[in-house]
Amino acid sequence: MPGNKTVVYQGPGHVSVEDLDYPKLELPEQHRKINHGAILKVVASNICGSDQHMVRGRTTAPEGQTLGHEITGEVVEVGPDVEFIKVGDLCSVPFNIACGRCRMCMEGHTGVCLNVNPARAGAAYGYVDMGGWLGGQAQYVLVPYADFNLLKFPDKDRAMDKILDLAMLSDIFPTGYHGCYTAGVTTGSTVYIAGAGPVGLAAATSAFLLGAAVVIVGDLNEQRLAQARSFGCETVDLTTDASLADMVEQILGEPEVDAAVDAVGFEARGHGADAGEEPATVLNDIMSIARPAARLGIPGLYVTGDPGGKDAEAKVGSLRVSIGTGWAKSHSFTTGQCPVKQYNRQLMMAILHDRTHIAKNVHATVLPIDDAPKGYTDFDQGAASKYVLDPNRELVGAGV
Amino acid sequence: MPGNKTVVYQGPGHVSVEDLDYPKLELPEQHRKINHGAILKVVASNICGSDQHMVRGRTTAPEGQTLGHEITGEVVEVGPDVEFIKVGDLCSVPFNIACGRCRMCMEGHTGVCLNVNPARAGAAYGYVDMGGWLGGQAQYVLVPYADFNLLKFPDKDRAMDKILDLAMLSDIFPTGYHGCYTAGVTTGSTVYIAGAGPVGLAAATSAFLLGAAVVIVGDLNEQRLAQARSFGCETVDLTTDASLADMVEQILGEPEVDAAVDAVGFEARGHGADAGEEPATVLNDIMSIARPAARLGIPGLYVTGDPGGKDAEAKVGSLRVSIGTGWAKSHSFTTGQCPVKQYNRQLMMAILHDRTHIAKNVHATVLPIDDAPKGYTDFDQGAASKYVLDPNRELVGAGV
Amino acid sequence: MPGNKTVVYQGPGHVSVEDLDYPKLELPEQHRKINHGAILKVVASNICGSDQHMVRGRTTAPEGQTLGHEITGEVVEVGPDVEFIKVGDLCSVPFNIACGRCRMCMEGHTGVCLNVNPARAGAAYGYVDMGGWLGGQAQYVLVPYADFNLLKFPDKDRAMDKILDLAMLSDIFPTGYHGCYTAGVTTGSTVYIAGAGPVGLAAATSAFLLGAAVVIVGDLNEQRLAQARSFGCETVDLTTDASLADMVEQILGEPEVDAAVDAVGFEARGHGADAGEEPATVLNDIMSIARPAARLGIPGLYVTGDPGGKDAEAKVGSLRVSIGTGWAKSHSFTTGQCPVKQYNRQLMMAILHDRTHIAKNVHATVLPIDDAPKGYTDFDQGAASKYVLDPNRELVGAGV
Amino acid sequence: MPGNKTVVYQGPGHVSVEDLDYPKLELPEQHRKINHGAILKVVASNICGSDQHMVRGRTTAPEGQTLGHEITGEVVEVGPDVEFIKVGDLCSVPFNIACGRCRMCMEGHTGVCLNVNPARAGAAYGYVDMGGWLGGQAQYVLVPYADFNLLKFPDKDRAMDKILDLAMLSDIFPTGYHGCYTAGVTTGSTVYIAGAGPVGLAAATSAFLLGAAVVIVGDLNEQRLAQARSFGCETVDLTTDASLADMVEQILGEPEVDAAVDAVGFEARGHGADAGEEPATVLNDIMSIARPAARLGIPGLYVTGDPGGKDAEAKVGSLRVSIGTGWAKSHSFTTGQCPVKQYNRQLMMAILHDRTHIAKNVHATVLPIDDAPKGYTDFDQGAASKYVLDPNRELVGAGV
Repeated sequence: MPGNKTVVYQGPGHVSVEDLDYPKLELPEQHRKINHGAILKVVASNICGSDQHMVRGRTTAPEGQTLGHEITGEVVEVGPDVEFIKVGDLCSVPFNIACGRCRMCMEGHTGVCLNVNPARAGAAYGYVDMGGWLGGQAQYVLVPYADFNLLKFPDKDRAMDKILDLAMLSDIFPTGYHGCYTAGVTTGSTVYIAGAGPVGLAAATSAFLLGAAVVIVGDLNEQRLAQARSFGCETVDLTTDASLADMVEQILGEPEVDAAVDAVGFEARGHGADAGEEPATVLNDIMSIARPAARLGIPGLYVTGDPGGKDAEAKVGSLRVSIGTGWAKSHSFTTGQCPVKQYNRQLMMAILHDRTHIAKNVHATVLPIDDAPKGYTDFDQGAASKYVLDPNRELVGAGV
Repeated sequence: MPGNKTVVYQGPGHVSVEDLDYPKLELPEQHRKINHGAILKVVASNICGSDQHMVRGRTTAPEGQTLGHEITGEVVEVGPDVEFIKVGDLCSVPFNIACGRCRMCMEGHTGVCLNVNPARAGAAYGYVDMGGWLGGQAQYVLVPYADFNLLKFPDKDRAMDKILDLAMLSDIFPTGYHGCYTAGVTTGSTVYIAGAGPVGLAAATSAFLLGAAVVIVGDLNEQRLAQARSFGCETVDLTTDASLADMVEQILGEPEVDAAVDAVGFEARGHGADAGEEPATVLNDIMSIARPAARLGIPGLYVTGDPGGKDAEAKVGSLRVSIGTGWAKSHSFTTGQCPVKQYNRQLMMAILHDRTHIAKNVHATVLPIDDAPKGYTDFDQGAASKYVLDPNRELVGAGV
Repeated sequence: MPGNKTVVYQGPGHVSVEDLDYPKLELPEQHRKINHGAILKVVASNICGSDQHMVRGRTTAPEGQTLGHEITGEVVEVGPDVEFIKVGDLCSVPFNIACGRCRMCMEGHTGVCLNVNPARAGAAYGYVDMGGWLGGQAQYVLVPYADFNLLKFPDKDRAMDKILDLAMLSDIFPTGYHGCYTAGVTTGSTVYIAGAGPVGLAAATSAFLLGAAVVIVGDLNEQRLAQARSFGCETVDLTTDASLADMVEQILGEPEVDAAVDAVGFEARGHGADAGEEPATVLNDIMSIARPAARLGIPGLYVTGDPGGKDAEAKVGSLRVSIGTGWAKSHSFTTGQCPVKQYNRQLMMAILHDRTHIAKNVHATVLPIDDAPKGYTDFDQGAASKYVLDPNRELVGAGV
Repeated sequence: MPGNKTVVYQGPGHVSVEDLDYPKLELPEQHRKINHGAILKVVASNICGSDQHMVRGRTTAPEGQTLGHEITGEVVEVGPDVEFIKVGDLCSVPFNIACGRCRMCMEGHTGVCLNVNPARAGAAYGYVDMGGWLGGQAQYVLVPYADFNLLKFPDKDRAMDKILDLAMLSDIFPTGYHGCYTAGVTTGSTVYIAGAGPVGLAAATSAFLLGAAVVIVGDLNEQRLAQARSFGCETVDLTTDASLADMVEQILGEPEVDAAVDAVGFEARGHGADAGEEPATVLNDIMSIARPAARLGIPGLYVTGDPGGKDAEAKVGSLRVSIGTGWAKSHSFTTGQCPVKQYNRQLMMAILHDRTHIAKNVHATVLPIDDAPKGYTDFDQGAASKYVLDPNRELVGAGV
């Protein structure tokens, strides 16, 4: 029985790599046998911005919480109820765990499955309050309801040729796409993406894939904006004093876009060089520059409690939203986790047939799992990279 | 040339009935000839909750503002560009004025037409900041782009038999329907409607028409709740100390509904017997009791500035919204004015073929136009009635 | 181990009731263990028009084919992989068998599941060429993928009070609803339903539930048309010489409807008192009387081979369709089996909350299973009844 | 007053260029003043495959019928009711004439407008049975309801730089896009396009714009297939003996595509080197190779009467369709003219921002209007070109 090196949260600002037990087909926290599960040998496991919320101490995650929900791997064991997935299959794992049997799953809302988390709707690997499933920044991981959850790549060799692109199917590519799709981005759209982190860059990539005419990305981090420009985006620098509408008008000739996406969430900072945290900044921004009748996609995370919130209101998730701005323009809003299964197969096809280059656009950068602590630190400091952990040394030589 | 008795705002708490000039085919404020317009002799013109915002002094409406945007009438004159509407046609007038020629109109978003209000997208009759069009709580009114805006009733005599029902097509019936439709109400839904005023009752009526299994209406006004119960709704009394979720659970056996509608807006009060104004109450309520992946319809008005707001934030339209509650459940939200033309023909058909009884459900009550001041006062005090002004004495004997 | 009385096809025009073996958790034809399956004690099992295709010899069904796919029952045994369905649950069984794990199921297309029939997409109980699953006009039946397929009624006693209505959830109510839904029936629609058999009556019932203003049903069988009139439909008698458009115009004042549904399929007869079989009659009819841009719902069955077809073309499923008629009006068409799971929960809610009375509308009539042969004969002769077999004598006293 | 060189049908196989009168703001055939109209000086006017139906004598077009419905031009005169379009605007003209005031227009179905053709729903310029509007293969043309119909290019100079691309907005680009859009083509789709004529190539271009992974084009004309390969399509040669499914499988590894488009219509030929006309070939083909639950887009024209039909049935538009093939797979079908206004603005944006190169893909080729007869002949003989007439010599030097 092999060991299982795993990234573990050790308190605010600290992660370590521990050698935990090889996973079993069971979920102790929920007292469940997982006969429908598969064990995967992890090929790639990315560090996500939402992991950072935990590591920064902005959640109630306990020390010892295992991390990692952006998983790609090879099946090495299947439970007795697994019928279609086979040992040897190379697969992408949607970060949202779903049963495939409840009303939400049947309607496609796999981000809010009713059967995988006793505490609330929805679950994920390696995340506080998300059902107790072990993290996948590890050498091995258990995937429940394997027939339903796993997306098998049709050809293993072809898949390994594009493995860094395919590694983005577990979360950020579908998440960015969901932001754009729910914002109604389509042929000829002008689009504003708030945030040039990996999800923002994935949203910008998705906007082009959906046919956008112009994609504008806004951020306070010049290095990340440069990354956005590298694949054809326009950018606006939010550290300047210019208003967002004016900057949009300079690009488009009009101060409004057809569609806007919040790829930041509640840890947003205000505008200007010295802006502090202003959790409703992005919500208010996107209403201000979206045209009448626009739809706004909000994959950026908002929470109901935030121990690190800047004031008493923010600590309980109450944000000062100028909802009247959106109401006057008849805006509509889509919030919440991306239901990955609605998009990952299609995006896989686009990758395999060379229609998009997500790994390059987000600057995918491979790290050995032992370097995970450094990856967390660099990412937290604003590196314009998407870190891909390589727990079993199978990505050596993989490039974008 | 006849005169034109019209209801006019005279400052907070006061309206009067003035004899103004018969309308012309022009719009002085925008220096436009309105050759595409028609003059209607008004048959019915309802008092709307949104008129109350002005009359209560919660807007910047100037003294002298003419009132009235819920208009039904007979065409008595058409401009030279009107091709299909004829003198003698009995018509419903959508409260949102639209050109039928801009991108928004072409996409069906007639509530945010780009060509009828120099100040912003969208216009209405008799409303502050909505393009300067004269109010229709009057004997005669100008309707621009008559071919596009007017909904002709197919048979005048049959229409007069159901005129109080048809009078609700100009605003509240489509508005309530829009709330439910955008909330995804369909066959078998469980629905929560916040507010038992006329729009709330119209939303409840619409929910049944859309096939809802259970419709729950919440309000602080017992008389209005009784009106909701009169046509099969369940009700929850928000003056009590019970939590909304508990009250919903008592009715449904579970604390969540499939769909929820905000038919209140920013002048909301909190819960409990002595609740004061809490402008985000309803937004937060509906997120709290809607199931995962629910859609929330928000026809209730939210503003960008409120002179009467309870504190400095509310005065600029910044509300304390617990957006994380909705985000965690993957909620989506549709805000804004109802685009009446998307629904009014279908609802007319439902009325004419006796599939719904909106006038009875909202307790339509006819008043001579001279009694408009009393109608405003009674409605403001919470009367469970929808007042229909009868400026040309054509509704004598009309009943529900 | 109990026996298992089952209805069996014995050659054209003949069915018998045989005592077969109690079912096992396996599917011999596909050499599969069905650990995800449940055994149900059947409470109600309806005779369907599509069973008649087999019994009339219009398919390649072999003698010995077991029959029955409209099943309602109580779970008496579950396989080791069943996690959420429990022994004792009273459930509706969608007639289309689906795995819940393939792309089609994930997209909601449970009628064309890829994993339940080696020969083609889609499977059903007791039907030729549909995967070899045993029929449910029986005392006991195996339901695979029980967690995914079964719709549990929330309260057993309340369910037994409406059991004849709920028995229609397995096929005809969702099928009729699917026809209307895909035809775009909504508030205020005028609708034409071709066929007054049980599916046609279920479609008419669904049209009202969806808010239709006027529902017109056409057939050659006066007894069935009378049944349609019993719940508010208008009817047209296709044995007369009048054109369909003229008859529609007499009812509506115009010769076109907003939406039309084909609830007949390929065994259609032409118009007029002595009309013979004309398999494309209904397709051509509904194009002729649907308005421009209408959508046409086609749940009526069309086949690729018909041993009893009236000529060489019909025998291979080639029909003479006037497609230009629909093209000129920009019609769109939805064909195929209803994916029951998309609708059955919602329709169950409508039944339980008394918003619809499907059993009454289709004239549900209970028969002991031993009388199945007579039920087949009477139904074939045009009885205006929907026969519900009662294999375990649990429907004694059940009424509509 | 200038003259008005115009292409005119002169009987089967013959067109001529005649000098007709400069247009007036009126429509003599319908006895209407067209105060809402504009006169355009035509900059580009394409020859369309549907013009060929007339010129080949496959319609009831009379001698003297003016031709041309793919119009781009500059406004030189506006009627008194035109409010937003100005003299000097450079515009694309949707081939379908629409009023913007009827129910169909309001719902976006501008291809079946109710007010522009007394004979039926829908109208076009220069086409038999389409309302009597004059053709636009001319120097000048009248466009009614100019505010509604005309799409103004935002910048005239930038527009002239891409004028051959923009010239495709009047018909074939939206038509091809409509085919793909209604077939559900989206990110990652595999697509089959039947026909490599200009509409087929426009559909293939649209499929890529919509994100398709693989686009397969089928035709009998090798020169046109080569044109398809020039921008990344896969192709299948229908003159060979291989089955279409086998050829698809060779490309994709499976015999089915996600979506299919009929860009041919009723003048289809069968498969094989010597195939004769088989009007239902394409309908049957696309059902045979589309996956279960696929949607099929059918912009290819089907008619209700065809004087040149190959047999008595075809002459009345009755085609032998294997509808059971589609039914068994739960296919849905969208037929009819493309409603150009639903897509042309978005496609214009894609062109202006360089996201697509439609003129190059369809091999746009400029001809002086005097060479129109040769253009018709060459196109009829299968030239892999899209001919753009240049009636006012403004395209000299325009290239792709």
